[in-house]
Amino acid sequence: MSRPQRQTLDDLLRHGPLDLGGDVAEQRAVFHDMMTSLPLPADVLTTAGELGGVPVVTVGTPGDDPATVLLYLHGGAYAIGSAADAAGLAGDVARRTGARAVCVDYRLAPENPFPAAVDDALAVYRALLDGGVPSSAVAFVGESAGGGLAVATLVAARDAGLPQPSSAAVFSPWADLSVSGDSAVGKAAVDPALTAEGLRRRARDYLRDTDPTTPHASPVFADLTGLAPLLIQVGSHEILLDDAVRLAARAAECDVHVELQVWPRVPHVFQAFAAMLDEADAALRAAAAFTRAHWAATDADDVSGEVSGEVLPGGKESVVRQ
Amino acid sequence: MSRPQRQTLDDLLRHGPLDLGGDVAEQRAVFHDMMTSLPLPADVLTTAGELGGVPVVTVGTPGDDPATVLLYLHGGAYAIGSAADAAGLAGDVARRTGARAVCVDYRLAPENPFPAAVDDALAVYRALLDGGVPSSAVAFVGESAGGGLAVATLVAARDAGLPQPSSAAVFSPWADLSVSGDSAVGKAAVDPALTAEGLRRRARDYLRDTDPTTPHASPVFADLTGLAPLLIQVGSHEILLDDAVRLAARAAECDVHVELQVWPRVPHVFQAFAAMLDEADAALRAAAAFTRAHWAATDADDVSGEVSGEVLPGGKESVVRQ
Repeated sequence: MSRPQRQTLDDLLRHGPLDLGGDVAEQRAVFHDMMTSLPLPADVLTTAGELGGVPVVTVGTPGDDPATVLLYLHGGAYAIGSAADAAGLAGDVARRTGARAVCVDYRLAPENPFPAAVDDALAVYRALLDGGVPSSAVAFVGESAGGGLAVATLVAARDAGLPQPSSAAVFSPWADLSVSGDSAVGKAAVDPALTAEGLRRRARDYLRDTDPTTPHASPVFADLTGLAPLLIQVGSHEILLDDAVRLAARAAECDVHVELQVWPRVPHVFQAFAAMLDEADAALRAAAAFTRAHWAATDADDVSGEVSGEVLPGGKESVVRQ
Repeated sequence: MSRPQRQTLDDLLRHGPLDLGGDVAEQRAVFHDMMTSLPLPADVLTTAGELGGVPVVTVGTPGDDPATVLLYLHGGAYAIGSAADAAGLAGDVARRTGARAVCVDYRLAPENPFPAAVDDALAVYRALLDGGVPSSAVAFVGESAGGGLAVATLVAARDAGLPQPSSAAVFSPWADLSVSGDSAVGKAAVDPALTAEGLRRRARDYLRDTDPTTPHASPVFADLTGLAPLLIQVGSHEILLDDAVRLAARAAECDVHVELQVWPRVPHVFQAFAAMLDEADAALRAAAAFTRAHWAATDADDVSGEVSGEVLPGGKESVVRQ
C-alpha cells in the first residue's frame, strides 16, 4: 500500500476546511460539500423514505440481494452529517456486501440530545424486524459517531429484548464520549482530522447533563454480553485509536466474537477514501467479507444465533459451565 | 459453532492430567502424550534437522510451495513441549498455508533460562535468511509461549538489524511474563487449562533474575515499531485473554498492521482441536488466509515491505510527517 497515497490524504485532511468541533451550521455545510464532492456512481440508487417514524435514505446497487439489509449509521460527531451525505460510503459497502443500505437520518445534537440518536436507530431496527426482516438478515454498519451508535444500538436492542442482528462492522468508532483514551493525547500530532477538544465540544452538545460514561452513549463502558459478532476497524493515525482498542477489549471480556483490524498510518474513517487509498479498499473488502460470512452462517447453533437467542447478561456462564 | 463441542473440550481440559505449572519432567511427558494422542495424518512428513546450530523438525504436506516457509514456535510455557510435539498443529497450519513449517526446538527452562529461547528462534530465522530464503517468504507462527516468543523474535530481529518476515500469526500468546493482565483473575473461573500460579512458576523458571517486563521476554512491554503485520487469535475463556488484547493495543500504538480475533467461550490454543471444534477450523482458516495474503503482497511499497525495509524506531514519523 502506498505511502504517497497516505501522504496525499493526510495533506487533504490536515489543510481542508472540515473541523468537527467548529460551528455546527457551518460545519454541516462543509461536511456535506466534502462528502458529496465525488458524484455517486451512476448505478447507485438512493430513495428517501421513513421507517419507524424516522427518516431514512435507502442506498442500493443493481446486484442487491433483497433478502439482506444493512442498517447504516453515518458519522459526524452526533451533530453533523446526514443519511444522504453518507450515500457514497454506504453505497460502496452495499455494493461489496450485495445488500441495500438503510441509512438512518437520526436526529442530531445540539437540537436533539442523547438519547435521541439511539432511540432513532433502535426505532428503525425495530421497524425492519416488525416489517418481517429476520434479525439474522440485518447487519449494522457505522462510522465514527455512527460506529459508537451502532454498538450502543446493539446494547439498546439487547436491553429492549430484541434479537441481535447477524453482525456489526464499525469504522473508527467514537465509543467513549468522555474522550479519555490514551490516544487522545498520544496520537494528537499524527491525527490530521480530529482534535480531542473538538470531540469534547460535540460530546457536550450531545450529552448535555448526561454522564459521558453512560453505557448507551459510550459503549466502551457498557456490558456488551450477548452482542452480535463485531468487526472494528481503525487507523493508527487517529486520536480515536483507543476507542477501537478498548471496545474490542470490552467485547472480548464479555465473550463477544470480536475482530479488531488496525491499519497503520491512516486516518479517521479512511474507508471513505477507497478511490485514492489502497488501505481503504482492503478494509472495505474485509468488512464485506465479515458481514457476508455472518449472513451465511445459518446454522441455528452458530455463535451469532446463540448469543441473540439464548444468552443474556448473567445467564451465560451458568449455562456453559453447569 | 457448537456448544456441545465447546463443552466437551472444556471437560477434557478441566479434568485432564495436564498442569503447565506442575513438575516439569512429569508434565513434559503428559504434554507429549496429549499432543501426540492423535496420529499424524499419513501425508504429513516430519524431518529432524538443524538450522543455525538449533535442532528443528520440518513438517510438510504434499502440496507445499517450496518458495515459502513457516517458522513455527511451539507452546509449553517455555519449559515444556517440543518441535516434534507440535507437529500435529504445525502440520495443519502448513497444509492450510501451503508451506512447510520449520518447528524450532528452542532450549527450554529451567535448564536454559531467558534469553536462550529467543536466541534459538532468532538463530533459526537468521539461518533461513543466510540460506537464501527471502524474508518476504517467511512467516512466523507461534502458540502460547511460542506466540509470545514469535513476537519477541520479531523485536529481536529488528533490534539485530534483520529484515522482518512477511507476517506473524500467534495463537493465545503468552506475552506478559509478569502475569499482570486483568484476565489473570477475571477469566480464572472459566479457563479450563491454565492458572496464574502455574504461569508464574514457569516464568520464574524461565526468567530467573530477569525482570519479567523485559521487552524480549514480555513483548507487551516492548516497542513494537517496525514489526511485520501481526495476527493475534485468542479465546475468551482464557486467563491470557488480556495478553492478546494488550499486545494488539501495543502494536496499534506502534503503527503495526495488527488484527485481533477473539473467539468467544473457547480455551487456550483452541486451534489445536480442529478435529472436534468448529471454531478451531475457522480460526486456522483465517490464520492461513492472513499468512497467504501477506505472501501475495509483493508490491515493494506494501506495508510489510515498508516496515521491514525502511521503518525503524524513531525514524518513521519523521518520514511520514515531514
